[in-house]
Amino acid sequence: MKTNMIVGQSGGPTAAINASLAGVIRQAMRSEEIGEVYGALNGIEGLLQRNIIDLRASMKNTEDYDRLAATPAMALGSCRYKLPAAPHEAYDQILKIFKDYGIGLFFYIGGNDSMDTVKQLSAFFKEKGENIRCIGVPKTIDNDLPRTDHTPGFGSAAKYIAGSIAELALDSSVYDMFSVIVVEIMGRNAGWLTAASALARDSGCAAPQLIYLPEAAFDPDDFIKKVESYSHKNQLLIVAVSEGIKTANGEYVSAAGATRDAFGHVQLAGTGKYLEDLIKDKLGCKVRSIEFSVLQRAAGHFASATDIAEALQIGEAAVRAALEGQTGVMMMFERISNAPYLVQCTTVPIEECANLEKTIPAEWIVGGCDVSEDMMTYLRPLVVGRAAGFEKGGVPSYLRLDKTIIKK
Amino acid sequence: MKTNMIVGQSGGPTAAINASLAGVIRQAMRSEEIGEVYGALNGIEGLLQRNIIDLRASMKNTEDYDRLAATPAMALGSCRYKLPAAPHEAYDQILKIFKDYGIGLFFYIGGNDSMDTVKQLSAFFKEKGENIRCIGVPKTIDNDLPRTDHTPGFGSAAKYIAGSIAELALDSSVYDMFSVIVVEIMGRNAGWLTAASALARDSGCAAPQLIYLPEAAFDPDDFIKKVESYSHKNQLLIVAVSEGIKTANGEYVSAAGATRDAFGHVQLAGTGKYLEDLIKDKLGCKVRSIEFSVLQRAAGHFASATDIAEALQIGEAAVRAALEGQTGVMMMFERISNAPYLVQCTTVPIEECANLEKTIPAEWIVGGCDVSEDMMTYLRPLVVGRAAGFEKGGVPSYLRLDKTIIKK
Repeated sequence: MKTNMIVGQSGGPTAAINASLAGVIRQAMRSEEIGEVYGALNGIEGLLQRNIIDLRASMKNTEDYDRLAATPAMALGSCRYKLPAAPHEAYDQILKIFKDYGIGLFFYIGGNDSMDTVKQLSAFFKEKGENIRCIGVPKTIDNDLPRTDHTPGFGSAAKYIAGSIAELALDSSVYDMFSVIVVEIMGRNAGWLTAASALARDSGCAAPQLIYLPEAAFDPDDFIKKVESYSHKNQLLIVAVSEGIKTANGEYVSAAGATRDAFGHVQLAGTGKYLEDLIKDKLGCKVRSIEFSVLQRAAGHFASATDIAEALQIGEAAVRAALEGQTGVMMMFERISNAPYLVQCTTVPIEECANLEKTIPAEWIVGGCDVSEDMMTYLRPLVVGRAAGFEKGGVPSYLRLDKTIIKK
Repeated sequence: MKTNMIVGQSGGPTAAINASLAGVIRQAMRSEEIGEVYGALNGIEGLLQRNIIDLRASMKNTEDYDRLAATPAMALGSCRYKLPAAPHEAYDQILKIFKDYGIGLFFYIGGNDSMDTVKQLSAFFKEKGENIRCIGVPKTIDNDLPRTDHTPGFGSAAKYIAGSIAELALDSSVYDMFSVIVVEIMGRNAGWLTAASALARDSGCAAPQLIYLPEAAFDPDDFIKKVESYSHKNQLLIVAVSEGIKTANGEYVSAAGATRDAFGHVQLAGTGKYLEDLIKDKLGCKVRSIEFSVLQRAAGHFASATDIAEALQIGEAAVRAALEGQTGVMMMFERISNAPYLVQCTTVPIEECANLEKTIPAEWIVGGCDVSEDMMTYLRPLVVGRAAGFEKGGVPSYLRLDKTIIKK
């Protein structure tokens, strides 16, 4: 007897999360054991409202999978809703919805919080003796999920950051004078994305000369001394800084950056802007700060071909794992070798991932302001290749899902 | 008898200016009338210091031209130095340098100020009875040079802006709530780049819903009313705003945006940040501002294939024009037709371009906050195609010139 499946997305957008969605759908469509292929709009929140769509309706030909895989952000929409701890009526509601739709397989593509949802739901179904399998598919540009070698979405963001810094370095080197650019990079408490800025050097530039990660305490006085030491060279200095850096006493550096806007409102300035102001105040040299903002997570046009291909594979592997009978697991990459670069998709018990954060090991941080060669070896394969982008008339052409709600 | 040539670059970087350089070099290398192919480092300023390099040394095979064409920023370096009005000793110095190096052909790739240098120098050489031909090759992302249909570099920046706004719109639509993004775009007093944001709609999104150009007076009260009218719809509002917008009394809107940093220093906030603060103050809704910063001019990875190909062609055409005996002219594109899109390279007397600015005609601006269909028809062909990027190990691979100085 066939069973139906449903897939949802949650957390922040990435350039690769729809590739995992495309993988899940494609493998489900191939399987004779799976009947309906449903999608939940806006994650678990939309699921509770029965905002459920038929994904078969949107996938009409082979190219649609490639187009969906090349579409950044989240085709199903997202939510920031985290299931409350069981027992809670939400669990019974979800079970009722799954029964009504004949759903026996649940796939949730997301980060730390989403893995918690998978953990809670799979435990609840087991306890109730229900054969509903729940599989977590990792995604986050932050690369902070434990156990997996890396997370889908990270490679594309890393490529955007490294490539954009290489372009900034080239742009700013056309004038023959000293100037500083502070680039603020995402990643919360994990420095992986900021570390990836070091890959810009592989393009032949010296930038970024200084790299500050949240895993190492930040010392403002030492920072100013280091910047000053570069001011005697007639060149550009690029500082890559994580939004989440903290001083030795554990305070976010950005917390010091309160500013007052044109209307007198006090605002937090952001780490990059604060360091810009600090350099201006202490050294008075030419300096500007740049935030890549959400472009670093959404830039489908600069996605890593390796990342997109792997995200698709891990989505397919998730469906195979569920059909093999697995539940309460997160899909993960295990790196087999660096040269040639080889990974395989396996599973890990969800308890080992949910609500946990993977940060950079101390031995991969050099002198508090750089990364080691081991880090570079780890990072390099993840950004290889430029993903095929779809364009129509010179602008991106995205796949948009048919969002007709199937009410039952 | 052969004559030697020299080429220089000046003004701000673009993604296409090295394509024009590649075109000039390639055509010069093909010509039997041209001997040495020199480059001046850092424009006219470096020329005066005899910082002259041999460009043949860097171009070893066919692929080098393609790699140079795909390298953003300015391979020869730039300057902001403008020749003082003649008579001035700088003119005699340049003549002496040209004599010492046997130079009879001078190509200057740049914007308005650089065209003034071409104008002054060609007039000086004519007056002295010297057969030294001076040709201006246009470049500027701002698209504000008169007479030419458009400028090389504009199409790539336009593509970056339109594509990035499409990605922003997709990224921000994953949550089901009202929010505003104000995107500040370059272009000084010309709104062409900001107008190009409208191309994002060709990707299927509604953004940008509001477009503010420096050519139309900006009314803050009307702006707030318009933003508020969107707040009743449950969607994302993207506002594209030129850095150079002014109020009806001619004052830059950014001039109102003075802020105080964490150290008490007063700073100008920038137009986008000021509008963000204004919306926050008046409407209290979720809003953020984004600056594309220098990435919009330097993003070689997102360059328009049309732009790069045309920039190369206009560089080649400049050498042909000089060899035909022209001097004191700027190269330009004349648009033959829109469908199929056809342009040809011709020349225009430099007096008709130097120091003049081309802004958007009033009839292409709709209701003070949008652009007309004629504008879209004008813009569309310029962004078609994704330029071939060169990568090594997943990061951009640029051509760097051999900068050995040839002293004479």
